[in-house]
Formats: sequence, C-alpha cells, structure tokens
Amino acid sequence: MKRHLVSAADLSRDDALLILDTAEELAQLSGRAVKKLPTLRGRTVVNLFFEDSTRTKTSFEVAEKRLSADVINFSAKGSSVSKGESLKDTALTLQAMGADAVVIRHHASGAAARLAGSDWLHGSVINAGDGTHEHPTQALLDAFTMRRHLNPGLGRDLAGRKIAIVGDILHSRVARSNVHLLTTLGAEVTFVAPPTLLPIGIDTWPCQVSYDLDAVLPKVDAVMMLRVQRERMNAAFFPTEREYSRRYGLDGLRLATMPEHAIVMHPGPMVRGMEITADVADSPRCTVVEQVANGVSVRMAVLYLLLGGAVFADSSADSARTTDTPEAAQ
Amino acid sequence: MKRHLVSAADLSRDDALLILDTAEELAQLSGRAVKKLPTLRGRTVVNLFFEDSTRTKTSFEVAEKRLSADVINFSAKGSSVSKGESLKDTALTLQAMGADAVVIRHHASGAAARLAGSDWLHGSVINAGDGTHEHPTQALLDAFTMRRHLNPGLGRDLAGRKIAIVGDILHSRVARSNVHLLTTLGAEVTFVAPPTLLPIGIDTWPCQVSYDLDAVLPKVDAVMMLRVQRERMNAAFFPTEREYSRRYGLDGLRLATMPEHAIVMHPGPMVRGMEITADVADSPRCTVVEQVANGVSVRMAVLYLLLGGAVFADSSADSARTTDTPEAAQ
Amino acid sequence: MKRHLVSAADLSRDDALLILDTAEELAQLSGRAVKKLPTLRGRTVVNLFFEDSTRTKTSFEVAEKRLSADVINFSAKGSSVSKGESLKDTALTLQAMGADAVVIRHHASGAAARLAGSDWLHGSVINAGDGTHEHPTQALLDAFTMRRHLNPGLGRDLAGRKIAIVGDILHSRVARSNVHLLTTLGAEVTFVAPPTLLPIGIDTWPCQVSYDLDAVLPKVDAVMMLRVQRERMNAAFFPTEREYSRRYGLDGLRLATMPEHAIVMHPGPMVRGMEITADVADSPRCTVVEQVANGVSVRMAVLYLLLGGAVFADSSADSARTTDTPEAAQ
Repeated sequence: MKRHLVSAADLSRDDALLILDTAEELAQLSGRAVKKLPTLRGRTVVNLFFEDSTRTKTSFEVAEKRLSADVINFSAKGSSVSKGESLKDTALTLQAMGADAVVIRHHASGAAARLAGSDWLHGSVINAGDGTHEHPTQALLDAFTMRRHLNPGLGRDLAGRKIAIVGDILHSRVARSNVHLLTTLGAEVTFVAPPTLLPIGIDTWPCQVSYDLDAVLPKVDAVMMLRVQRERMNAAFFPTEREYSRRYGLDGLRLATMPEHAIVMHPGPMVRGMEITADVADSPRCTVVEQVANGVSVRMAVLYLLLGGAVFADSSADSARTTDTPEAAQ
Repeated sequence: MKRHLVSAADLSRDDALLILDTAEELAQLSGRAVKKLPTLRGRTVVNLFFEDSTRTKTSFEVAEKRLSADVINFSAKGSSVSKGESLKDTALTLQAMGADAVVIRHHASGAAARLAGSDWLHGSVINAGDGTHEHPTQALLDAFTMRRHLNPGLGRDLAGRKIAIVGDILHSRVARSNVHLLTTLGAEVTFVAPPTLLPIGIDTWPCQVSYDLDAVLPKVDAVMMLRVQRERMNAAFFPTEREYSRRYGLDGLRLATMPEHAIVMHPGPMVRGMEITADVADSPRCTVVEQVANGVSVRMAVLYLLLGGAVFADSSADSARTTDTPEAAQ
Repeated sequence: MKRHLVSAADLSRDDALLILDTAEELAQLSGRAVKKLPTLRGRTVVNLFFEDSTRTKTSFEVAEKRLSADVINFSAKGSSVSKGESLKDTALTLQAMGADAVVIRHHASGAAARLAGSDWLHGSVINAGDGTHEHPTQALLDAFTMRRHLNPGLGRDLAGRKIAIVGDILHSRVARSNVHLLTTLGAEVTFVAPPTLLPIGIDTWPCQVSYDLDAVLPKVDAVMMLRVQRERMNAAFFPTEREYSRRYGLDGLRLATMPEHAIVMHPGPMVRGMEITADVADSPRCTVVEQVANGVSVRMAVLYLLLGGAVFADSSADSARTTDTPEAAQ
C-alpha cells in the first residue's frame, strides 16, 4: 500500500474527510497568524511540471514552503526530458536526489498513476493534473469550499447537496475529479453541457446529465462553471461565443433563479463574458478567490498527511485504466 | 492609508531618509557578517515579473531571503496571464494565496499604482519598474550611493549637490524616479540629452536641461549615465554610435574635467563604448558595482519597513496620472 | 591562493580524497535521516547557468538547500547577459549582491577558469561544466561511486583499478575530468572510441586508447558509457545507429564478458538502444542511479569544504590553457 494522491476516485469517505478536516485546522492556524509550520523541515518536495501552470504550481509551492519543506521546481522544459528522457529515468533521478514527494503535472492521462504504481520513487506522488484524467487537489479544494458554505464543521460531508458542473466536461479533469469526490461525500452531481462536450460513456458515470441550464439552476446548492476554450466551441457546433454564452453562460438573470444560499464556483482563470459574465464573477456569491485560498490549505493538508505517514486508498496503476469507465465511488 | 512603494514622487523627505538610514544600518550589519535576519520569517513575498529583469529580480530575491521571507517567483510567462488573465485576477489570486507583499515589474506605466490603489491585495506593493513611469528602489539605491560619497552619515540629505543625468531620458523610469527623489533630498538635477530623447513637457519638471555635456561636467558632484539602446538612436537622429558617443558619451577626457570628488554612476548594464568608455566604466570613480550592492541594502530596508508596519505617503492611483506632469516634490 | 573547483586536473590526491571522504560522511549522515545541516545558513549560493541543465542544476540546488544556503538561480536567458553583458559585469553584479559561491555552467571552455582567475568574485567558483573542457564534480561523483564498489572505506584510492571510458571522448568534458581525477587516484584509464571521436593529441593524455571494445571489457573494473548524440555519428562515419551500437554499444552479451565485480557507469541521461541496451541500463550492475545520488553527496562535500574555508590546489587561469595538452596529474 502506497502513500500517494493520484485520483479522487481512490479516496474513501474517511480519507476525504480526514483531508478536509486537516485543511480546516491548518486554515484556522493560518488565520491566527501561524503561517509557518516546521512539519517538513529537511524534506525535499519536487514540483515536476511537464505543462505550464503558474497558478497550480504556485499554490503547491506556497503550501510546501509554509510547511518548511525544501522546494525544487523541476521544469521539464530545457531538461533531459526534452531530449527524450523517459518518465522512468526522470523519476529515478529525482528519487536518487532524495525527493520525499513529487508533485506531478503531465499532459498525458495516467502519468501520475504510472509514477505511483512504479517502484521508481519511494516518496509520495501527488497528482497536480494529468491530461484529461484527474486533478484531485482541485476537487478537494472545491469540496472544502462547498462544505464551508453548505455544511460547515469538522467531520461533515455534503450529503444530499445538489451540484451542477457546467461547460466543457469532455476535456475537464476538474469535472472528472469532482464527480468522484462529490459522490463519495454524498452530493448529487449534474453535468450541464452540449452533447458534443460530454465524454462518450457518460451514462455510466455517477451523475445526471442535462442540456438545459435554466431547468437545473433553481435546484442547485452550488454551480461550478468550467473554463471554455474558444477553439473547442467549433467542435461543439457553436458558431459564436455569444451563442455559447446564451445557452451555457452564467449571467445575472440566471444567477437570480438560483436559491439564495447557492454559490457560484469556478476553478479559474475565468473568461469573463464567455462562461460567466463580469457581474457574476465579481458577485459576493462567486467563490473563485476563496477557492484559491482554500487550495493552499488543502494542499498543505495533503502534504502534511502523506509525508507525515498517512495512507490513503491505494492508487495503483489500475486507477488509470478505470478513467473512462469510473465505478461509483464506494 | 496604504503601505506601498509605488513612486519616488510620493516619498516625503522624512520617508526617504528613513529608508536610507535603515539601509545604512542593514548594510553595516551585513558588513559585520550578520547576513540573515529573521524579520520576515513566515511571510510570503511574491516577485511578479511581467518583464524579464534578472538583475532587479535577483536583487529583490537576495534581499527577501536575507530577511528570511518565503519567496515565490511568479513569472507571467506561460501563466494564465499569457492566456489573457487580467491584472485584477492575478492580484486576487496572489492575495488568496497569502502574499504579504508583491514586488511588481510591468511593461505598462501605472501598473504598480493600479495594484496599490486597488483593494485586491491587503499586503504591500513595491514597484520594481513600470513602463516608462518609475523605478523607485533604483532611485533610492542611487541616492544611497551618492550620500555615502557626498554627505555620509545617518540623517543626512543631498542639499545643494549637483547631479547630471545623461542620455535617453525619454524612455527612462530611472531618470524619472531620480529627479523626484533627488529634488526631495535637496539636490539640483540637470538632464543632459538630445532634444529628441527628452519627454514633452520637460520644462515643467523640477530640473534643468542642457544639450551640452561638456558645459555641465565641471560643476557636477555626480553624473549618471543612462543605458542607450541602439534602436533609439535613429529616433534621436544620430546616424552612428560614434556620433552619439562623441556628443553624449563619457570618456576619460571628459572624466578629467569633472571635480575630483565627483562620481560616475550607471544603473547597469553598461554598454561599453556607447554611453561610457571601458576605461571610465572600470575607473575607481565609477560606482556601478557599489550601486548593485547598495540595491540589496535599500530593498531590504523597504521590505523591512513596509512589512514591519511603516507607512509611507499614500501612493494612490493619482500618482500614475501625475507621471507626465510631475509636481515638485514637497 | 583561491578557493575554487575549476578542474579535476588541479586536484591533488589529498584534495580528492578529502572531498570523497567528506562526501562519504555526509552520505552516511543522510542515511541516518540527518538531511538538513545548518552549515551554510545565511550564505548565498548562485547557480549561474548559461546552458540548460536541469539535472546538474537540480543536484547542486538540492545539495545547497540541504546545507541551508540561500539559493539564487540566475538564468542567463532573458537576462542582461542576453543583451550582451560581459561575464565580467555579470560576475561583478553577483559579487556586489553578496554571492558566497557561484556554480557556473557555460558553453565556453575556460569560462569557469576565467571567473576563478579573476578578482571579480571574492567567493568560491565551482565549475558545473564548461564547454568541452571539464566537469569536475561529475568526475568526483564517478570516483565516489567506483570507490564504494571497488575499494570502499575512508582514505582509500583507486590504485591499480582499470577503467574504460567509451564513446564520444572528443566532445566530452566528463571524459576529460575523469581521466585527470582517476589518474590522480591511481587508476588506469582506457579510452575506447572510433578515431574520429578522439581529440587530437590524445597520445599525450595519461591514458591508453583502444578501438576494440571487446578486447578491453574482460579486463575492466568499471566501464563508463558516454552519451552519444545522433548528429555526431555522421562525423564519426557511422551510417546508422545500429552500426555504432554494434561496434561501441554495451549489450548483455558484452556485459557477460566483463569480470563479475565490474560495474557499468553512465553520466546520464542514457540513450537506450544507442550506447547501452535497455537490459544493461536496468541491470543491477548499472550504477547510473547511484551516481545521481552520489552527485548530491559530492556536491555537498565540495560546498561544505570550500565555503568552510578549505583550500584546494590553485585553479588559476593556467588550467584553461592546459586543456588541450593536459599534463599527467602529479
């Protein structure tokens, strides 16, 4: 059994609540100005980023430094990797240099599971996004944010809460990680997207599907708007941004149809005017900035637990293979 | 009232002397091998650089690490910024991640004032150069260097000292910050440049203007040679580098006409053979290397004061608007 | 007399053994979970890399952080260097900023010696690879690895051991540093390469030369396979990779002809299928991963000794000039 976080699908309810509760305690320490903990002094954490991602990398880096780790940013650009070095040889190199944990972002789905399922690294592997597969710390920070608003308190889950995730589900590792984790925590997830932006086999996922945003909004506790990339709209048969926004964008009128307690989420960066209008993005009901702050707490919690010896459900190479046919989480 | 350093024009004489005196004490500690201070332990300082600038970024990074801060280098390249994220969203992200100070270098004049005048960040904003507007820590390190040579001692200003700034004034945020700070400290500034490299409205600036370097040099206490970029010489109607150097370059013959105590300054990097000859650049009267060392002390002082709770004159969004018609400093 | 490590050719037997013994003690501390030492607290080490090299830079960075140094990564890209700043001005800048040591990687042979032989820096200069000249810490980690396998124990050298270095000797600073250090430690070195990949004047080097890998292998204690770059094979008159591999590659059949105790080394990254087959690369007799781990220990030892005040044989500008006609080590 290994100490990794590869996939939200691997997390049991107890694992997930342990992370969320730990993050809550760390956030409260930070709020009381206890910003630096000596927990990881002398431990080396490598941020191994094969894709650019300043936001996610910075969030991990801040979390690692608050825990007093030695941080090594290992960019694949200009490295042996660009000369064709295999993931295995890169991993063996990092292991030999004494990496206690490797945070990996990779363009290939399954890369993190490949690392975690290997014996190349003795330390922990934390998936910071692999292809269109998973981005588990994003799902954890989203769940953390929802819990704070919808069912606050240590030990609480999201039982019975209704969450809509809207937009480009097909290419979104955020959607994928969220559906697993939210289901594990008892929430009910509805994907809202044009059929062309939904993955094949969506009927086997543990969620509802709708093509009608207006029908869904009045019943949600939270709506998560995904970033839409212009170049993918063509594939979705939308001739213009305006047409996409009209059908699947969140504006003030639609926001007004949501229950008063319901929140608007976004993994960032937002494209104002596309999937979300500026007034909604800047509304107090939009939690995008809170999500960023919660990201640091959640990542601190994951590092704290994994490097402190906690063991999550085994994220073996299997989890890569189950990507496209996810089972309902336990 | 906020805790920022956006513009040298905003600094009162007392503020400026406080920074210079603090820098002097820090420099003396460093000279006594006390290199690392615990002042900023647990505080996060973000270097947010939208323009490449290894020298300035490294100087800030050294200063931050000597004060034991956690340093995050947030390069705009390859980040959401390059995907069109607004300065506001970047700032909100850094705030959410817990930035206690943001050191910003930006290609747009007014970017630092925009950040400081917003409520996006609770921490301090330090301008590390914005467009052709200001570069206040450069002016502070220049003033620190002049004071050490021309009027050493805590509490001293530069009253009555004559400073010439030579070259491409039009595009120089260094010249702009210097004229404000030097005037505040009582010095008299003369710009020496071809008319085409002077900004419109120069007659309203608190300085003299001359087109004749040879007439100015015998009376100066310090001459500051600015870097000249080849591509701007055409705009200045100089057909060749040689022609520019003949009129506005500093060589050994011209150095000999300066008073014996007068120093030669340069913000670096120098273009030897263009605005300064190699023999002058390497002369003991040239302070370019001292300026670099002083830059670390001055930046430590600014961070020490701002993050320690000092409040400078409010650098509001106004300061951006006054760029082209600066008032005389108080 | 200065405190630098520019060239393995400069190291006396005593210097080399001091480094190896110190590295051994540091490696044993690390094995007992003492990973962080306070030795360089408050000292600033600059990694000045003019060539991309993620592996070497990361190895130094890990070593520096384990010794608690403040680490500044000064990339030449996008810096004043790319605007034409001279090595001298860069060095003076780093000196002014308080660099206690500069680790330099440069595309020009002799760059490290130029820095070390100058009075631009008061701190230590450590050569992390200069052109086709030297890469002394690579040779030290190689010797460390050999000693552990072939003659373990503090104070031991490699007297009488037979080492073959195979492949592109002509362009290899690794080969160059190794032949010097290994000879100093009493080993006998044989270069095995096609004549076109050997440097002119090879007959004056302190080593044997062979064109016949099969004749050499049965007598070696260690064989070091160098990385071969495809574009250089043409220069070597090999029409195909297969042809090169047939003559100079190490495969399982050849491995079987080596003495049982003999090890296979590679500086990495390996090109599996070119100079080494995958089965040999992954064999327990291949030390490539150990070498990476030993690299951290050896670099910690060099920094520990140099910044702690040890003085090695003077690596003056002379050593650059002797590159192409190396004398036998003393």
